[in-house]
Order: sequence, then structure tokens, then C-alpha cells
Amino acid sequence: MLNVNVELKERFYPIHIGEGLLSNPNVYPLKAGDKIMVVTNPTVAKYYLTNLIATLQQIGCIVEQVLLPDGEKYKTIESLNLIFTALLKANYGRDATIIALGGGVIGDVAGFAASTYQRGIRFIQIPTTLLAQVDSSVGGKTAVNHELGKNMIGAFYQPCAVIIDTQTLKTLPKREVNAGLAEVIKYGAILDYSFFEWLEKHIDLLVALDQKHLQQCIAHCCKIKADVVARDETEKNERALLNLGHTFGHAIETHLGYGNWLHGEAVAAGSMMAAVLSKILGDLDDNDVARLEKLLARANLPTYSPDGMQPEDYLPYMMRDKKVLSGQLRLILLKSLGQAYIATETELPLVLEAIRCCTQTD
Amino acid sequence: MLNVNVELKERFYPIHIGEGLLSNPNVYPLKAGDKIMVVTNPTVAKYYLTNLIATLQQIGCIVEQVLLPDGEKYKTIESLNLIFTALLKANYGRDATIIALGGGVIGDVAGFAASTYQRGIRFIQIPTTLLAQVDSSVGGKTAVNHELGKNMIGAFYQPCAVIIDTQTLKTLPKREVNAGLAEVIKYGAILDYSFFEWLEKHIDLLVALDQKHLQQCIAHCCKIKADVVARDETEKNERALLNLGHTFGHAIETHLGYGNWLHGEAVAAGSMMAAVLSKILGDLDDNDVARLEKLLARANLPTYSPDGMQPEDYLPYMMRDKKVLSGQLRLILLKSLGQAYIATETELPLVLEAIRCCTQTD
Repeated sequence: MLNVNVELKERFYPIHIGEGLLSNPNVYPLKAGDKIMVVTNPTVAKYYLTNLIATLQQIGCIVEQVLLPDGEKYKTIESLNLIFTALLKANYGRDATIIALGGGVIGDVAGFAASTYQRGIRFIQIPTTLLAQVDSSVGGKTAVNHELGKNMIGAFYQPCAVIIDTQTLKTLPKREVNAGLAEVIKYGAILDYSFFEWLEKHIDLLVALDQKHLQQCIAHCCKIKADVVARDETEKNERALLNLGHTFGHAIETHLGYGNWLHGEAVAAGSMMAAVLSKILGDLDDNDVARLEKLLARANLPTYSPDGMQPEDYLPYMMRDKKVLSGQLRLILLKSLGQAYIATETELPLVLEAIRCCTQTD
Repeated sequence: MLNVNVELKERFYPIHIGEGLLSNPNVYPLKAGDKIMVVTNPTVAKYYLTNLIATLQQIGCIVEQVLLPDGEKYKTIESLNLIFTALLKANYGRDATIIALGGGVIGDVAGFAASTYQRGIRFIQIPTTLLAQVDSSVGGKTAVNHELGKNMIGAFYQPCAVIIDTQTLKTLPKREVNAGLAEVIKYGAILDYSFFEWLEKHIDLLVALDQKHLQQCIAHCCKIKADVVARDETEKNERALLNLGHTFGHAIETHLGYGNWLHGEAVAAGSMMAAVLSKILGDLDDNDVARLEKLLARANLPTYSPDGMQPEDYLPYMMRDKKVLSGQLRLILLKSLGQAYIATETELPLVLEAIRCCTQTD
């Protein structure tokens, strides 16, 4: 088992990474009598809920469960309310604990519910997708979508523990594993050139779910993100770097309707747009862009804008991005592979040009 | 103008109290170009919105507004969503500021919206009811109701300033002024015997809206609450004392349906129940209970359970209270007038007996 500690100003929490942790009562910061609400969805429940409940009952916990409909389009205030209703019907008080068992959607909705139920209860995350394991389970961002924008309603709220059982990736659709690798590659591109090189060597093993390399990779990504978050919990500054490709990516997801492209797929294409824009600005060279494109392609990820989405289609969504300050677009761009920065004065024609370069014409 | 400073671990914010502050641009922590979303309701808007907008425009702010339907029954997730939609339609980003202009409902919903819109934006409160001025505007509790319980969904979130214009009380219905006095009396009863005596001397002037005494009284209550909140921001302990009468009161409000009794009226009756229970437990004497009852009555407040509500009717609501820990009812009771404590092991038959003593039989 690998462990990564997330150290924040007032709090501290551990991330445990290993095979079979779902069945290991020792990794749960719980005791007999604790009241647990497991939040999951039918897809994940089918594989892992029985196992988790057995472990919790072995500890002596009182366990209730609530299943949310599966998918990004259910990352809504209505799903949030299903959790509140379940908690209230169970007469759970401020001493209850929510466990999120699932991917990013479950983690985001359940975490937001934990942060707002009776103004905050305890929260444990068990991310079951690679994307959630390396990204959304670390750092305390919780949210639901609004019909006018993604992740617009939420809170910064930290779990008391994150438990990553890498066995869960074996039941994950390949397409979702690949989408998770988009975020993995992003870490290398923005902050860690030698990790980028490591990925160029081992990406095929990761695609093939080699457990040893997966665990190393997940631990390393968690460590990178934990360090960034510890330095900048509420995203005033450096944490924004983690959003490489996300402003473009959110535009893609919103334009297509949530769920048509996976988040990681949109981030992959968005990262390419950011890289091409960085090349236009003279920071990356052709070879850098080609290396990023090749690495994404080896993980079977899209490196182009979706068919039929025009460069101009991106702008309304991008201007509504949370990173917009005083009407000024803020993009994460690359000085070099392994070094990202926040660009605040990028001219819109150049942004459109970069998107155009990533638009397939046939 | 009187000023009270609320000092919290990481933050600090001022409360300004005076006549005509709504029109004084110097008390707003804002500058030209700031984007403001004023959240209010039609009743308050009629009297004060034009005035506020003129002041904000004098500063040079960009101002948008959203009107929520008036009343406790609209303190819902749906109202919250009206604010999110208005913010998104205005393309407001993380640098926007919400101003809550209104009573406790507006403050609670707008504050919760501010805490969760894009994971947190700035928030200024302009409370226009006495209740909101002495209670809900101080301390950062924000919330909406759930159909299964009051204030069940919310966050601890501090405003960057609170501006109390005591002129606004002149347009407030008398019944609501009185309801505010229930919370004022509560401060004396739980923490400040000499303030309780001051109220016994001056309650009639307060009922008559004497501006000088009102400002003194509001400043004193804010000071008491600010001190408590500074010592215990997230209600682990001492802050719970502020809930004298609230567990009984919430049961009354929920049972009757929100809005039939005003919150302050329910708190007044609830405070009497807590006092009678304290007498049953041997801490207060008959004279203490009579003094509290008389003070509440001089402010035209109810000191009895609503007609037709039986003692047993209280229990289901009380057991769902946020202060319940591990299934154990936690009540705020009085050791003496001016000294409250948290009672964790009160036997239910005694609780029922106290409610029965406050039930009118005719």
C-alpha cells in the first residue's frame, strides 16, 4: 500500500493506494457505532457496494445507502437533494459520515452534500475511476452543474480520508481508463517534465492496467496535486495550473451536452489547444506539441475539436469560465513541457487560431 | 454610527450600525467597477432598492438585481437556484459580490448562494429586520430549508461587511419588530444578566423604535454574538448557547408550517419552555421564570405553545434537530438568568412536562 498525505492549513488527511483496500477495515477512519451514508450509483453498486457494506459492518458501523442515477447529466441540485432526503429520513445528525463510492460525479455531488448537510459533516472518498483517483478525489473541490454552466455551484471541502483500491479499475470501461490518463498526462505537462518522460516510457503498461505501475502513477499524481493544493487550497493562484485544457474542455462538454465526450477526453483535446496556443505564442516548438499529441494518442485520446464544433462556438462558454476575472479570459498555457503558467492577456484571435489548428477539416 | 468588529481566525469583518447608512457610500467595502448582484424581495425592494442602487452607482459599481418571493416558505433550494441563474445570466465570475438586502430569509439564502457560487464569492449583508440585525446577520450561518427540516442545508460563510441602517425598522411591521426582540431578550437570558436588567428598564422604548436605544441595543447584541462566534465559529460548543428556545421553536415552526408563527415568536415560546424546564430541574426559581415571561409579554410575544399543538407533537421535530448528537437530545437550558448551558441528558418526560406547563388549557 502506498500513502500520500495531504497537508492543509488546519487539517490533514491521508490517501491510501493499494489493491483490495475496499475490504481492509484498517484504512477507514471509523469506529463502531458511526453512522454512515454510502452514496453511489447502480453501476458501481453492482460491483462493490456489498463488499464495502460488509467491511463497514465488520467495523460496527450503522450503514444506510443512497443510489444516484449514473452520469454527468445527473450531477445536479436534484441529485444533491436525494442525498439530503436520505440523510434526513435516516435521522442522521451532524455526527454522520458520507462515503462517496464511485467516480468524479459521485465524489463531487456527495462531497458537496457533506459540506452543506447541517453545514458540514464528515466525508470519505472511495474513487473508483482513474480520473477520480488522480484528480477529483484530491483537493476538496466539490460541485454540481447548473444548466448554464459546469461545476458552477460548489464548495471547497476536504475529505477525512481517500481510499483508492486499484482493483476497481478492472471493471472500468477502457474508454474511462483512457480519459483518466488525460489528467495523468496533464500533470506531467504542467509541472513535472521527468514524469512526462516516465509516461512516454510506461503509458502502454498503464493502458494495460499493470497494477504496480498504476499504483506508482496514481501516487505520484496525488502527490503532485496534494502539494499544489497544500500551497493554494482555494485556487487563488498556482492551483489554477491544474486546469490545463479545462477551459477549452468545459466548452466542448457544455456544447456537446454533458456526457457525450468524457471529461478526460475533452481535457485531452483542450490540452492540445493550449499546447498549440503556446506554440503560436512562441513558447513550445513543433516537437513539444508532437510529443504531447503522440502521448495522448497512445492513450487513445482525442487531440482534435469535436466534429462540427467551430472555433467561434467555444467563446461564449469560455467567457463564462470560473477562471474569468473582470471579464478577462485566464488560460493555462505552457512555457515548456513540464512548466505551465496563467496567461491573462491572450488575444482572442490567437485563441481562435489555436482552436482552428485543432479542428479536423476533411 | 456604532461599529462592532467580528474577529475570526483568518478573517475580520465590520458591522456598521446607524441611521441612513443605506445612502452612505463610505460604509461599503466596494470600488468602481465592482460587479454587484443585489438579492432582495419585492416588499423590501419597494422601500429601499432604488436608494441602495443609487448609492452603489455613486461608487461606480455595476449593479444587477434578483428578487426572491417573500417569506420563509421560499427559503428553498429553488430560490437559491434563482440567484445562481441570475449570476450566470449576468456572466458574473468569482470576483462578483452579492449584497443581501432584506431579513433573515434573504440573508440566509443569499449568503448560502455566495458561499457556493463558483465555490465562494464576496458577500455583504444589509439586514432590514430587527431579527436579522441582531441575529442572522452576525456569525456566518447561511442555509435553506428542506421539506423535512428547517435550515438543514447550508454553510458557515462570513460576509465581508454588515451594514445596519436602523431607519429600515420604521417600515417593518410591528409584529416583526417584536419577533426581533425575542432574540434580543435571549441574549440577556443566556449570557448577560445586566443586559437583561437593562432590557427590563428599556423594553418599551425599544418597542416604540426609539432610535438611540435601538442602536445601543443592536450594537450590544452584535457584540455578544460576535464574541461568541469568534470563540466558536463552527458551533462545536459555546455557540450552541445562542440556540436557547430554538429546538422547541423549530418544532413549533415546522409543525405549524413555516410562516404561521414568526421565527422570533416561536423562539419566545421556546425560551419559556427552556426556562420552565430549567425550573423543573431546580436551577431557576418561580421569580426568574416570571421575569422572563413578563419581559417577553411586554414585547407582545407569545409565551405559550400554539393552540392545539400537544407536547408529544414536539418530539419528532426535536429529535431531528441539528444539535442532536448520537441520538441524544441537546437542549440549551438556564443555570440562572444570564447563564445558559448545554444539557445533554435531559429525560424526555421532563421535557414533555415543561412543554405541558407552557400549553394553555381553557
